[in-house]
Amino acid sequence: MNATLFVCTTCRAGETPVEGKPVAGARLYAALMSAPPPEGVAIAPVECLSACSNGCAVALSAPGCWSYVYGRLGVDDVTPIIEGAAAYAATTDGLVPWRERPQIFRRQSLARLPPQER
Amino acid sequence: MNATLFVCTTCRAGETPVEGKPVAGARLYAALMSAPPPEGVAIAPVECLSACSNGCAVALSAPGCWSYVYGRLGVDDVTPIIEGAAAYAATTDGLVPWRERPQIFRRQSLARLPPQER
Repeated sequence: MNATLFVCTTCRAGETPVEGKPVAGARLYAALMSAPPPEGVAIAPVECLSACSNGCAVALSAPGCWSYVYGRLGVDDVTPIIEGAAAYAATTDGLVPWRERPQIFRRQSLARLPPQER
Repeated sequence: MNATLFVCTTCRAGETPVEGKPVAGARLYAALMSAPPPEGVAIAPVECLSACSNGCAVALSAPGCWSYVYGRLGVDDVTPIIEGAAAYAATTDGLVPWRERPQIFRRQSLARLPPQER
């Protein structure tokens, strides 16, 4: 499938902004873009996923599939985020078997959405 | 637009299940179905929006539009949920101006998602 991993680049994750220093969401996005890309997944920045009290946040979405939003993430979570995104992209409906999801995806789900009607 | 208001019918909202009594999400769904329907919005039950620690939860979605998930809702919120859903359906992109959103939608957003790629 053609999945998209949206990364909120405006998440502050509870930090007070420091002039000249990228916010936590921007740092997570940069770290994800520096990692080996997950197969079948485009990584896209987005301004605000409206999960501000649970940042940093990312979302996985693909046409005709369930979408997922995860929170309380940081640069230390890049490897499991990439692995989880690749597992998502390998499905036909967005539903990765529970045991095959990274622990951060099992524990830090903020919400999921049914496939959009066509 | 053709919007869908998904209602998590399995949300317990922190209550201990009582045999024979519908869980909080099922009660919210029933209350929404009993209300005057919002124009342009279909109401659909869904099993689990993965927002379990912030139930009851609902989601608004429409093709080509931003989607939203809201939480910590109950049967007392039916009127603003219906009003907010109708306002959402009246947009072309899912983005209701901030001041026109019901207070529960301004304060109880769990997440939003960008439009799905086609």
